[in-house]
Amino acid sequence: MVVGLGPGPAEWMTPEASAAIKAATDVVGYGPYVERLVLRTDQRAHASDNRIEMDRARLALRLAAEGRMVAVVSGGDPGVFAMAAAVFEAIEGDLQWLKLDIAVAPGVTAMQAAAARLGAPLGHDFCAISLSDNLKPWAIVERRLRAAADGDFVMALYNPASKARPTRITQAFDLLRTLKTTTTPVAFARAVGRADETLTLTTLGEADASLADMATLVVIGSSETRVIARDGARPWMLTPRAYGVRR
Amino acid sequence: MVVGLGPGPAEWMTPEASAAIKAATDVVGYGPYVERLVLRTDQRAHASDNRIEMDRARLALRLAAEGRMVAVVSGGDPGVFAMAAAVFEAIEGDLQWLKLDIAVAPGVTAMQAAAARLGAPLGHDFCAISLSDNLKPWAIVERRLRAAADGDFVMALYNPASKARPTRITQAFDLLRTLKTTTTPVAFARAVGRADETLTLTTLGEADASLADMATLVVIGSSETRVIARDGARPWMLTPRAYGVRR
Repeated sequence: MVVGLGPGPAEWMTPEASAAIKAATDVVGYGPYVERLVLRTDQRAHASDNRIEMDRARLALRLAAEGRMVAVVSGGDPGVFAMAAAVFEAIEGDLQWLKLDIAVAPGVTAMQAAAARLGAPLGHDFCAISLSDNLKPWAIVERRLRAAADGDFVMALYNPASKARPTRITQAFDLLRTLKTTTTPVAFARAVGRADETLTLTTLGEADASLADMATLVVIGSSETRVIARDGARPWMLTPRAYGVRR
Repeated sequence: MVVGLGPGPAEWMTPEASAAIKAATDVVGYGPYVERLVLRTDQRAHASDNRIEMDRARLALRLAAEGRMVAVVSGGDPGVFAMAAAVFEAIEGDLQWLKLDIAVAPGVTAMQAAAARLGAPLGHDFCAISLSDNLKPWAIVERRLRAAADGDFVMALYNPASKARPTRITQAFDLLRTLKTTTTPVAFARAVGRADETLTLTTLGEADASLADMATLVVIGSSETRVIARDGARPWMLTPRAYGVRR
């Protein structure tokens, strides 16, 4: 089973995911996700580095083929920029694994946790775009940012920066500033649900790309997205259900 | 608290959502969502019709202002085409409610449940688009479908058809057939997680719009989305993590 652990806290992990971890003989995943779990001594943990999703997927499938009950864990939702695609790619590459009993357990993904904290920024049509160019050309990222601006979608930007490529989000902001008004609300949601959670609400004109790291989700508003100021607290961010009403 | 109950089964409802329901003195929501819950005799249920989100939001805020502990429930994630936006719109309309202690509890939304059953169709960048034109002109729906096709996003289409407007999805398919190849994988995911769950995998060329109703989520692949055939079972649907590799 490919299992989504949610963004971090136990209160956001589904009962299905908890049951899958409990039932597993083997837990396979990126180190920090595996370490988040309290496993029994009869359960085997297979923690690995971030960059080797395919090796991890194949290890999980080999273990399952040996008859083990395997949980492949992802933070958030395994279907959103996470392990589900890698597992099915591995199956496509070795069709003997098609016989295995595979299932996916969905989870709350980072943009939903960020949205919950911010108010209702995803209240209307939206896109999720990974700025990682490890497995795709930057040109397709640009094409999608342009299309998302053309469609006036709210955008949830995953993987805005990494140690290897800290400037992706800078490039994205530079492009979006040519396509959208500078007053567009922008939020940086970092480590939502964890002890070091940080939320910053700003505008496209003033957004400081250095606030984004690997643990950050960036939300860019549509033309309808607005903020509701509060005394002594961060404003709420709202994309209303109606479109074009104020025009 | 604006609470996401997930797509239906208890195994997809977060512990946070369960705790919020337990702690509530009043539960406000669309009838079928409120009926899904087992409430105590000391808890008040306020079930209402689907079309009156703003009345429901204002009722919840009035109750909270009276000092009640209110859970406003949505199926799926309240931040995705659900009650969170209505609640913040109501607050914007009557700023005395800004003083209330408001929070949002995210949940698994329909596209994630559908994706989990289908394999990994959302494995790369994607859009979520509601085809409802109750609160927006159809022109913006068309603009977004065009933009999503231009950006080669996977699309998750919510509210593809209703009793009042059964032909939205037909219009969407007609438009998308002019923009994407007829072999693009398309999935209809109906009532995922419920007893009457139905999944249908087809192509854009052959998709039968009459399969979509109010309980259906429609997934349209990108140019990279493909299927993995299985003996005696529905194929898996996969959008790989890499882009342009086969070009």
